[in-house]
Amino acid sequence: MLTKSQIKLITSLKQKKFRLQHQLFVVEGTKVVQEFLNSDYELVEIFALDNRYACHKQKFTEVNLKELSKISGFSSPNNVLATFKIPAQKPIQWSALVVALDDVNDPGNLGTIIRLCDWFGIEDLVCSEATVDCYNPKVVQASMGSHSRVNISYVDLKDSLSSVSNCIGTFMDGSSIYDVQLPTSGVIILGNEANGISERVEALVTKRLSIPRFGKIKQTESLNVANATAIILSEFKRNLTET
Amino acid sequence: MLTKSQIKLITSLKQKKFRLQHQLFVVEGTKVVQEFLNSDYELVEIFALDNRYACHKQKFTEVNLKELSKISGFSSPNNVLATFKIPAQKPIQWSALVVALDDVNDPGNLGTIIRLCDWFGIEDLVCSEATVDCYNPKVVQASMGSHSRVNISYVDLKDSLSSVSNCIGTFMDGSSIYDVQLPTSGVIILGNEANGISERVEALVTKRLSIPRFGKIKQTESLNVANATAIILSEFKRNLTET
Repeated sequence: MLTKSQIKLITSLKQKKFRLQHQLFVVEGTKVVQEFLNSDYELVEIFALDNRYACHKQKFTEVNLKELSKISGFSSPNNVLATFKIPAQKPIQWSALVVALDDVNDPGNLGTIIRLCDWFGIEDLVCSEATVDCYNPKVVQASMGSHSRVNISYVDLKDSLSSVSNCIGTFMDGSSIYDVQLPTSGVIILGNEANGISERVEALVTKRLSIPRFGKIKQTESLNVANATAIILSEFKRNLTET
Repeated sequence: MLTKSQIKLITSLKQKKFRLQHQLFVVEGTKVVQEFLNSDYELVEIFALDNRYACHKQKFTEVNLKELSKISGFSSPNNVLATFKIPAQKPIQWSALVVALDDVNDPGNLGTIIRLCDWFGIEDLVCSEATVDCYNPKVVQASMGSHSRVNISYVDLKDSLSSVSNCIGTFMDGSSIYDVQLPTSGVIILGNEANGISERVEALVTKRLSIPRFGKIKQTESLNVANATAIILSEFKRNLTET
């Protein structure tokens, strides 16, 4: 049985200001909820159509489909919805290879980039303050649980990068990622979907790279930022396997 | 001034059966429409808020925002909407590097893969009959005009691939794409988002590849199919630059 105040709280968490106010976020679906349950994230409440989560005792509420629909962001709710505490930011390990996002807007792109960081063993993802919130429900779902294995921090990107010696950015006029010796540590910066890397961050870039384009007709303007991230991380990690 | 029959025809083109029946598809937005106008696609009608497309004479209709909203698939229509003829399928150049999709479902993924083929100079994209229709409006928009530079064919994939000697598929248990000598021609097969490559197509695969995973905790189940395509095409093309 769901109370009105539970419904009000959970549906409010679609908005960033209420996520910040309550320091909570929503996870949905059997698979993704399980990934968060297996992680260090702290469960607050869990609502499900059956009692397989009853081990969570007073945090667990069995609900029917009509109740689950009231709190779900899905058009067809998937068995289980849980709320977790937003954890405190952990220190960033700048000595490893780090990915930084300069105002990435699209929740699907951020979710996919989190999944890529997890795949390629990137432990720190550093986001500018204007990057879409990683606890946005669309980001949580697109990351498919990888969220729980990547340390995501929101920072003033210019301030944070100003003390980093190896700032790597991708630009149309950079050196080919296939031709240069890629460093084993540093920060790989990816820019906004429409505008790329901002001028204030570009000023800090020490290595300008590009992904070569092979099409005969040179009209393809750019790659999607998630695809660019995929190609760049693959290339950095391939280099590591050779050294 | 839009007629009722124009509105009915254009809105019907959201559905595949009507696109097939009329052999027409819809393109929206200044940038993407321009890419199609610059290509070999045959313009049928063009509707815009201003008269900059008046050079298309009787194919051009100036409309107001209310009229454009009636035919647009966007919540905020972007200046121009055009219909083009679905072209006849062109012959596939099997002697080059070809990408084949085995039942890719998501329009955004197909659009992104078309854009990647364009970027990496892949001229033929071969789709199984159950792959999402490339003239679906979401595919056309996601491909951002790359659509007009890649030859997309729908075929019985098993029949078509049965005479191809180099069928390359990606699997969790394949050889690392970083370690093997990649061929300069052949067909790179990508599978369905949930199920991967189907058994009937897998039986034809002559080279099993995988994208190595670097995360410490080996829980990331798979990469998104568009990201996998990005990484694989980058790796094939990088190899070509070295030979």
